[in-house]
Formats: sequence, structure tokens, C-alpha cells
Amino acid sequence: MRIAIDAMSGDLGSAPVVEACRHFANEHKDATLVVVGKQEELESLKDLENVEIVDARDVVKMTDSVMSVRRKKESSLVKALMMARNDEVDGVVSCGSTGAYYTAAMLFVKRIEGVSKSCLMATLPTFNGQGTCLLDVGANAENTAEQLGDFAIMGSLYCKNVRDIGNPKVALLNIGAEPHKGDEMHQEAYKLLNEMKETGKVNFVGNIEGRDILKGDADVIVTDGFSGNIALKSTEGAALIVMKAVKEGLMSSTRGKIGALIAKPAIYSVKDKFDYKTVGGALMMGFDHALVKAHGASDAQAFESAMALTYKMVENHVVDQLREGLKA
Amino acid sequence: MRIAIDAMSGDLGSAPVVEACRHFANEHKDATLVVVGKQEELESLKDLENVEIVDARDVVKMTDSVMSVRRKKESSLVKALMMARNDEVDGVVSCGSTGAYYTAAMLFVKRIEGVSKSCLMATLPTFNGQGTCLLDVGANAENTAEQLGDFAIMGSLYCKNVRDIGNPKVALLNIGAEPHKGDEMHQEAYKLLNEMKETGKVNFVGNIEGRDILKGDADVIVTDGFSGNIALKSTEGAALIVMKAVKEGLMSSTRGKIGALIAKPAIYSVKDKFDYKTVGGALMMGFDHALVKAHGASDAQAFESAMALTYKMVENHVVDQLREGLKA
Repeated sequence: MRIAIDAMSGDLGSAPVVEACRHFANEHKDATLVVVGKQEELESLKDLENVEIVDARDVVKMTDSVMSVRRKKESSLVKALMMARNDEVDGVVSCGSTGAYYTAAMLFVKRIEGVSKSCLMATLPTFNGQGTCLLDVGANAENTAEQLGDFAIMGSLYCKNVRDIGNPKVALLNIGAEPHKGDEMHQEAYKLLNEMKETGKVNFVGNIEGRDILKGDADVIVTDGFSGNIALKSTEGAALIVMKAVKEGLMSSTRGKIGALIAKPAIYSVKDKFDYKTVGGALMMGFDHALVKAHGASDAQAFESAMALTYKMVENHVVDQLREGLKA
Repeated sequence: MRIAIDAMSGDLGSAPVVEACRHFANEHKDATLVVVGKQEELESLKDLENVEIVDARDVVKMTDSVMSVRRKKESSLVKALMMARNDEVDGVVSCGSTGAYYTAAMLFVKRIEGVSKSCLMATLPTFNGQGTCLLDVGANAENTAEQLGDFAIMGSLYCKNVRDIGNPKVALLNIGAEPHKGDEMHQEAYKLLNEMKETGKVNFVGNIEGRDILKGDADVIVTDGFSGNIALKSTEGAALIVMKAVKEGLMSSTRGKIGALIAKPAIYSVKDKFDYKTVGGALMMGFDHALVKAHGASDAQAFESAMALTYKMVENHVVDQLREGLKA
């Protein structure tokens, strides 16, 4: 298996990526890492047998417009994706800007035959520790019911093959529990998902409301890109703000500070539980290669978890599974 | 001023409502409370000069379908709203089901002339303690750009007259900061709000993303009912789940328990800050009376804060302000 690594596009530069690559390459001798970036920054990987270095002189910066990928052909991100386009690698990992990454994937990487729309999938940490896959989280500003049906298939197959969930529960994000809730598209999507349940295609469990996303009752939550983006960022924002308020609350009095000092391990465990950085990033779904996006501010550990995810997707032939699943 | 109080529709029965009414009536001699409910449960209010009791034998239960308000004419909720319809009161407070309350308002209470759509507005607690008004949070499954323009006017006037904010900042909930973000409707809404800014109608500050809702940078956030409902429930759900996780994290070890005991006041202050019960509930906007919804599980204090909100709306002629503002 060969995985292309974009070493340059993250907030923290190449250092954490290099560290992650060194560790991962030593642990996974059956995988070849094709590390793309400024070669002078990748020197320390040269001695590793299963690492190839590809020089790339340009970088797509976080502040660049997403369309910059059109002209930045010599960037590490575009070069890594071009290797997927040319079937030189099985998967790509980057911690670059989500928008630029997705745009470049749309421009340069083929879609799976039969998929009505590609999308972005995020795995959210949940209270029960299981996590839940939410898609689309913002690749599309609008979606059709049929597209949500495809998202349900893709999310289910991902859960089966990567998260080892036998019969993943699929829910539709909506503004109420009853089938008639939501606008016309969501009512249609409910019907379609119900039909797909009856034919055994997906294990549809009904509508889910925003307040239940983080409970972890559903393994997959399908939604249009607009609502999904709002839901993802609202939960993420609220979780971060409440944690920040807890911290400030504790630090605002001596008594709080003492209590915090004692309770530190317990408080940190919660912080880790809902830390979006630990989840391994978003996935570009519907493409004929495994395209994984690590968090922009990934440290070595976070980047390595994104690499492990890619490895598992390739090892378990997730793209082939999706191709089969979307055929019928 | 006369305010109708639905005493029966909350999760906790009439007791907290009666307690709230007694206290409020004593504090606000210039207001007459018309308390609607089973008269045998309202006995203790009889001695108060500025309380009138209206017997209602039926109750709209939380589990009733929203359309039950059509036939439950003898319910406390419908009777209270009929008094608004007949101009016998200036405002109504209920802690009944939001769906039933809004449906009954649509059926029985007049809309303000010129308003394109009524909606539900919630005030969310924010990190900076200011709070932010989000509308629509789910009365409509779809909205037009024009309707979002009306929401901006209504939210602004509410902030000016009730929250005492001189020049309220209005943001559009969207999936990115740039003007071209979102589907066609949101792009149109951006343009319209920008025009309204140029003519001095609203202080539009641009798009806001889900993750920034609770920061408190905007005083008013306008959105379609579908996205608004997802945003409201996602933030509320995430805040509650993180607080629950903090609690469980602390309680899972002796060390955590000791720390929690010491830090209790600090932790409680955060819980209160993000407790949706303390905010006073949602408002039905666009009707020609002040219609306030207290939280379903309101205790006496929460119910009284909803009454205080109604009082302030009536005292400051908010409905008249809205009528004027929506004219131009």
C-alpha cells in the first residue's frame, strides 16, 4: 500500500508531520509513505526504507483562497492529490485547509462511479465514547434526498469497514422526530431512507434532533451540507466555549483554583473526550481514493491518527466497498 | 397592563406558576395578572387585588399533538390566547409545549400588519454574558430572504426595547464568512441585509458561523427555521452534554470528588451561565400581542423571569415598535 502525505499545509509546518511519518513508517513496514514537501525539511526521513520523498516547492496556505489550488500545481497538496489521480498511491493525508483540499479533490481526483455527490464527513466525539459520523458537513450548500441516500450508504459502509460496527444505525438530522418534519427535501429523504431500510440497504432509525447528536445513539447522521455545517460547528463551538467557561470559572477564585488543581486529571479527561483534534479529521467521501484531512493544527499524534485511518481504509478496501454499495 | 397567565401547561403543574404569580403581583401593582387554570388550584391567589382568576377545565399536555389546540377550546392555553385575540390582555405567558403554543398563536392571534412571517425567537446565553437572540428557531421549515429581513428588524427592535442595546449587531447564520457562502436564499439574504444596513434599517455585521454563536459577538442572529432549530438544539445539546461529562468525570474518582467539592461554587456558576432555563424562554414574534413561552420545566423563578420579560415588552410598547418598523 502507498499513502501520499502532504507535509507542508498545516498550521504548524512540516515538523509534526515528519515526526508522525517517522513513527508510522517504523510501525507499518507494509506501507510506503510518499512524503510530499520541501525536501530540505524532510531530510530526516531519508534513511527510512519505506519512505519516498517528493520535492514540492509551493504551499497552499490556510489563508489562500480555495481556488488557488488551480494554479498552485507545484504545491504539496496538489502534487499529493495528482498522485491519487494517476493511481500512484491508494490514499492521501493532508492537514491543509478543508476548503482547498476538497476543491482540489473535486478538480483532480475521480469520483466513484454511481455516486450522485461527493461530500465531507466528520466523526464527532460523543458522550458514550462511540463517536458519530456526520455527513455532509459543508461540501455542498444544498443537497437532494437521493444524495442523502448515498450519504447513508457511504456512512454505513465506512462504519462497518473502519469503525467495526456490524449494523450501523443511520439517522436523519431534522427539526423533530416525526416523519413529516422538515422541509420537502427532508420529508422525501425520510421516505427514501425508510425504503432503503425495508430493502436492507441501511439500518435507518429515524430522525435525530440537534440536541441528541452528541449522545451517540446514531452511528451515522446524514444531512444536507448547510445544516450539517451548522450542526458541526455549533456543537464544536458550544463544547469549546463551555470548557473555556469551566476553566475561567475555576480560575476566578482561589477556592476554584485549589479545587481545579485537585480535580485536574478528571477535568482533562473530559477535555480530551470532546477534543475535536483527537478524532482524526474529516474525510472526503465519494472519491475513488481514500482522502483524509487531519486537523489543521495537528500535532504528531493527531496527524498519525489520520494516517492510521487512511491505512485502515486502504487495508479494508473501503473505496471498493463504496463502489459496490453505490451500484445497486 | 393586563397579562394572561396559563397556569396549567408546564411539566411541573400549577404550583411554581402560582408561586411566581404571587410574588410578581406583589412586586408589580401596576399589572393585573389574569391567571387561567383549574380554579381549585389557584385558590391561594384569590386574596391578591391585582389577580383575576379564569377557570379552565382542560389542559394541553406536553404529549398532546400540536393540533390538539384546535379542539381543546377549554384549555388554559387556548383560553389565555383567546383573551389576547379579543384584546382583553396585552400579553400571554405559558410554559406549555412550544409547538402547541405556536400553533395556537397562529390559529387564534392576529399577526402584525406587514410582517411576512411570524417566527420563534430564542435568547441564548453567551460566553460574554450578553446573550444573543436567534430567530427563527423552528417555527418555519423554510424561509425566504425577505422573511429573514423581517426577522432582522424584529430582533433589532426587541434588543433595543427590551435588552437596552442601542445599536444591536445583526448577523446572518451561514456556512462561511464570505458574502457568496451558502445556498441561493442565504446569498440573497446577505445582499438584502447589506442593503438594509446601507439604509440604516439594521446594523448588519455579516455572516456568522455555528462555532461563533455562543461567543456573543452578535446581538441578533437571523436564520431560516430549519438551520436555526439545528443550531439552537446543537448548541444546547453540546453545552448540556459537556457539563454532564464534567460532572461524571469529577464523580468517577475520589480525587475528582474532593476537587469538585471545593470548586463547587465555580462549577455551579458555569452551569447557571449556560442554563437555558434561566434565559426566560422563547418568544413568538410577529404577533400583535406579547407572547412569551417559559421553559417547560420552569420553576417559580424561571416562570417569573418570563413574566418580567412580558411586562417589559408591554411597558415598552414593543408590538407597536415592531408594527412601525415593519411598515417602511
